[in-house]
Amino acid sequence: MKPKHRTGKVMPTLEDAIRASSLKNGMTISFHHHLRAGDYVLNDVVRACAALGFSDLTVNASAIMACHTPLLEAIREGVVTGIECNFMHAAVGHAVSQGILEQPVLFRTHGGRPAALENGTSHINVAFIAASAADAEGNCNGKEGSSAFGSIGYAMSDAEHADYVVVVTDNLMPYPLTDVSIPENLVDAVVVCDSIGDPDRIMSGTTRITRDPIGLLIADYTARAIEASGLIENGFSFQTGAGGTSLAAAAYIGERMRKRGVTGSFASGGITGLLVDLLNEGLFTSLADVQCFDREAVVSIRQNPRHVEISASRYASPEAKSAVVDRLDAVILGATEVGTDFSVNVHTDSNGMIMGGSGGHSDTAAGASLAVIAAPLVRARLPLIVDRPQTLSTPGDTIDLLVTQFGMACNPRRPDLHDRLVDAGLPVFSIEELKEKAELLTGRPRLLKNEGRVVARVNDRDGDELDVIRTVSS
Amino acid sequence: MKPKHRTGKVMPTLEDAIRASSLKNGMTISFHHHLRAGDYVLNDVVRACAALGFSDLTVNASAIMACHTPLLEAIREGVVTGIECNFMHAAVGHAVSQGILEQPVLFRTHGGRPAALENGTSHINVAFIAASAADAEGNCNGKEGSSAFGSIGYAMSDAEHADYVVVVTDNLMPYPLTDVSIPENLVDAVVVCDSIGDPDRIMSGTTRITRDPIGLLIADYTARAIEASGLIENGFSFQTGAGGTSLAAAAYIGERMRKRGVTGSFASGGITGLLVDLLNEGLFTSLADVQCFDREAVVSIRQNPRHVEISASRYASPEAKSAVVDRLDAVILGATEVGTDFSVNVHTDSNGMIMGGSGGHSDTAAGASLAVIAAPLVRARLPLIVDRPQTLSTPGDTIDLLVTQFGMACNPRRPDLHDRLVDAGLPVFSIEELKEKAELLTGRPRLLKNEGRVVARVNDRDGDELDVIRTVSS
Repeated sequence: MKPKHRTGKVMPTLEDAIRASSLKNGMTISFHHHLRAGDYVLNDVVRACAALGFSDLTVNASAIMACHTPLLEAIREGVVTGIECNFMHAAVGHAVSQGILEQPVLFRTHGGRPAALENGTSHINVAFIAASAADAEGNCNGKEGSSAFGSIGYAMSDAEHADYVVVVTDNLMPYPLTDVSIPENLVDAVVVCDSIGDPDRIMSGTTRITRDPIGLLIADYTARAIEASGLIENGFSFQTGAGGTSLAAAAYIGERMRKRGVTGSFASGGITGLLVDLLNEGLFTSLADVQCFDREAVVSIRQNPRHVEISASRYASPEAKSAVVDRLDAVILGATEVGTDFSVNVHTDSNGMIMGGSGGHSDTAAGASLAVIAAPLVRARLPLIVDRPQTLSTPGDTIDLLVTQFGMACNPRRPDLHDRLVDAGLPVFSIEELKEKAELLTGRPRLLKNEGRVVARVNDRDGDELDVIRTVSS
Repeated sequence: MKPKHRTGKVMPTLEDAIRASSLKNGMTISFHHHLRAGDYVLNDVVRACAALGFSDLTVNASAIMACHTPLLEAIREGVVTGIECNFMHAAVGHAVSQGILEQPVLFRTHGGRPAALENGTSHINVAFIAASAADAEGNCNGKEGSSAFGSIGYAMSDAEHADYVVVVTDNLMPYPLTDVSIPENLVDAVVVCDSIGDPDRIMSGTTRITRDPIGLLIADYTARAIEASGLIENGFSFQTGAGGTSLAAAAYIGERMRKRGVTGSFASGGITGLLVDLLNEGLFTSLADVQCFDREAVVSIRQNPRHVEISASRYASPEAKSAVVDRLDAVILGATEVGTDFSVNVHTDSNGMIMGGSGGHSDTAAGASLAVIAAPLVRARLPLIVDRPQTLSTPGDTIDLLVTQFGMACNPRRPDLHDRLVDAGLPVFSIEELKEKAELLTGRPRLLKNEGRVVARVNDRDGDELDVIRTVSS
């Protein structure tokens, strides 16, 4: 027989794939977070690296979730000494804020992460890609199988740019897989494991609209403000998150589209069942999905050709020749703090502890014609609006409007929008007025100033340093 | 309003896009050949370059077709001074063989072309990608619209690697296109023209099985040989071309699969209605399609999720971490000449004039477990088998079997196959015996030896020089 090119990519264990990858101490390994709070793969790989005696690794993950606390043990042991991510859950973030890592965490955005891979400022040595279906050559997706999570968009950039790509799956399918999100030509190794994640924690059931009257009021104001802006016309595109208030706002926007007889173009970003319903009703012609937030979205992306999987690069990379976020009419975003210049903090909590990250916040704010922050004016007896946010996550000049239950404030950069909101009879104030209103309720908060060493650097989507986060002693 | 990122990619004319691309004399422009004999785009672009006064351009096209004779005028004018391609129709090839170009044409293979882009030995400055549907940001496909041609697989590599990417379409769709083969993040400009091609010449109707008894006999022997090889078992994968004999062989293989109750895995390559029928019948579970050969294939790839579009890289690149061709069980290929060492010429005709090229010939021969050359022993009173082919297109050590109407010859490298064929009662000869048989019919042909200057270089799929082609005076 002539020599075959069949490559024997399937390896019995993660350890075998790691050995085959030529991973060395000091190198960078990468992960995607579509398995969300149910992910097993990051922990399994880090454990395997520890068992093989590796040290000084950097973990580059699109997000660090609550389930990733075993990372802390790996950090203590010196297996992992660096973290790069776009979001970090408090479960790991608090330990980072307390100084567990010597080297600062590097925060990017969902668009900045692929951009850094594209322009070479970031390099991944070995990418580990959890897939709910894969064949023996590594063709894979996140749509099929019992651990299905939907879009695998964030991992596409890793597959393209990493030196060595390991697909980890609990569902080996016959070659060739037909619904291919990441193709075999990019994959070096395939590891079959018992489970890539806890199905119950990968996906919530239907994400729910808030019942909280404050949240509903904010959502209503938000929808009315977007309508007043004049954007809800045929071709309208928008994005919102999976929080209860965001979902309520999306539902209210759907109502207004229905009433006006408007057919939108696309909704993007993290996709929920609510957006799937709007698609199926015909209010939008397509969904651009970089991540599924619930089971309904996972079912939809598998079945509906108008529910389109997109890469992180196409979603939001500033190095892309164009990105979906640049086509957004309106985006609804959250905030833990908003500065009087409309700058936003989504990285740290009221104690300055890491509990989040930009994700697509800065990217969509920069891209959308109308970027709305929708948030309660007071939370846990602390005011939303401050002179200067503890951490600068998203620059104020990319935010157009702040909506709270006590009314809204328009960025002075947008007098056109201000006039439209006033004309529509909406309660418009200056941001200083809203700040005063909050402080009447809460008192003026003590100014928190963390003076410790730098535990994290926050890069903007173009890769420039926006801020640093310092240690907090708790 | 805040500055929008909307990029205004749509340009009124090709000239505008060429100006925006910063194209300079001496640079390389690229094209794909999915529009086949109906393509307008290559000619239109070259004409626009001429009108703008460019000179010394290199055209890198996946194939040069019969419709591309205006290239000759551009060569005479000095607008184009270099050609790189994987296939060249005689309409242009004869002129090249007569010395119209000073600089030799560079022939690659369908897998070698993306490989050269991937490893940096080839560089495209500006790629022009004909698309039958595109939106204003350049998301595009070849599946929708009146000029639909199906898979756009060869152009995917151009889009990824070119400095500047122009999508040319006659069918601008609302943003965002949902069925996206090449995404906007790779596209710089979109030009809307009246027509990208002549629909009647883009696609033939159903490609037809030969009625010629010699072709049918060769096809029958081929199918019986593949069955005798033991490969027609569940999971069987294969590829064949669109010629009448190849189609007949595919039909006969389908019959044998049916009779044996075998379900194959995939058929790949250029896809025809005949393979679509085998897919729909359930004899194969999927098609891996880098190019559609007829209307049935175009309809199928648009509708059937098991008819999968693949990139040239995934199809055949030796730089890919694995490719579809490496998974092929059997491939049926043609030849103009076969050497006694089983090496094949598909580049030049009996007069040594350029009239073809490797396309996927070498790639599939290298990848498949069983590479069969199926061809008539005598054509136009010339023998198929020669001591040494005029041009070395595909190395003999990648060919397993030659099948003619007078019997078959097995590469001595494959005694296992030889024994199976003999056991099956098939007419097996040595290649020298078949050669003698042919020469009894034709006489020994005069040895053609072109001694002129080099007009083309033939690279193997790994990018090494396999042969050169010299001028022919006619």
